Amino acid sequence: MQALKISMTKLYFATTNINKFNEVKSILSTYNIQIEMAKLDLQEIQSDDLSKIAYEKAKDACKFLNSPVIVEDDGLFIDALNGFPGPYSAFVLKTIANKGILQLMQDKENRNAVFISIIAYCEPNKDPLTFIGEVKGSIVSGERGKVWGYDPIFVPNAANGLTYAELGSKKNELSHRKLALEQFAKWYTEK
Amino acid sequence: MQALKISMTKLYFATTNINKFNEVKSILSTYNIQIEMAKLDLQEIQSDDLSKIAYEKAKDACKFLNSPVIVEDDGLFIDALNGFPGPYSAFVLKTIANKGILQLMQDKENRNAVFISIIAYCEPNKDPLTFIGEVKGSIVSGERGKVWGYDPIFVPNAANGLTYAELGSKKNELSHRKLALEQFAKWYTEK
Repeated sequence: MQALKISMTKLYFATTNINKFNEVKSILSTYNIQIEMAKLDLQEIQSDDLSKIAYEKAKDACKFLNSPVIVEDDGLFIDALNGFPGPYSAFVLKTIANKGILQLMQDKENRNAVFISIIAYCEPNKDPLTFIGEVKGSIVSGERGKVWGYDPIFVPNAANGLTYAELGSKKNELSHRKLALEQFAKWYTEK
Repeated sequence: MQALKISMTKLYFATTNINKFNEVKSILSTYNIQIEMAKLDLQEIQSDDLSKIAYEKAKDACKFLNSPVIVEDDGLFIDALNGFPGPYSAFVLKTIANKGILQLMQDKENRNAVFISIIAYCEPNKDPLTFIGEVKGSIVSGERGKVWGYDPIFVPNAANGLTYAELGSKKNELSHRKLALEQFAKWYTEK
């Protein structure tokens, strides 16, 4: 009965990023949750708090679609840069890019960073719920692997020195996004 | 009659930044416009377009105060960094600060930058109006003068090599904020 309910309730993932959509779709399918892409260019608020950004975005998406929807926001928080680039991934990647981040890290001994993902789920006439995934790791000295976002410069502690980019599809087994989606999926399939 | 109208209409400047308030108050007083500080911590949207950020902020402030109000947003757009740090001054200053910007500029021959200020004015039941001020200049190689924001690293073209910070009170005669306020004041005193 529950499986039936899940397969019949349409769940949207609101994003304009096809890479992100494919990653989320692939991870959620392992929990038998199917999603559809809602290509909405949602207005984000400025905040150092990813949860707040995702919460507001989910609320807006749900109001627009009038249907259950998830959104995702993530950010790379580098210790030695006081949390930079944090929530402003798109702008930082578009301007100074990974090259700029590595330049800022040139003289830094502390390479620790944490990649955080927030999944916010909202259904009509309810407040959004947020689910968090965190992966600790470090920043490499030179980009390694295929470029998507910060993937070529972040090495998760559990990845034997490989960057997210070098891990390829194995990234989805241990990523911050996977952990947040896992939290969400547990709750969603049991609700 | 017009002078009377101006002196009797209370005009708020919504900001939590006392330095900014003092600067704006000092500049507007030269146009016989008095302002009061409304210490509102307004939610800003994420956008590369400063005008859009200021427009929405003025709308929110006006709704909250139910009174005429101005807000100001500014950003430093550095050519060689594709417009970074742009609209995200507060976050960038809090994390990588001017030291980080100078590190990113280390190997850059093109030092050109533009400092942009937007004044958005809103009165109840009307759409906000925006006024722009732009000052072209360059980024120095080391901080000079008292720290407030990016003032120690930006040299306006018309300032004989002095940074905003080194110009002291003379900054207010030629700054991007002054130019935006001038546009606003001309309109405001003639409306």
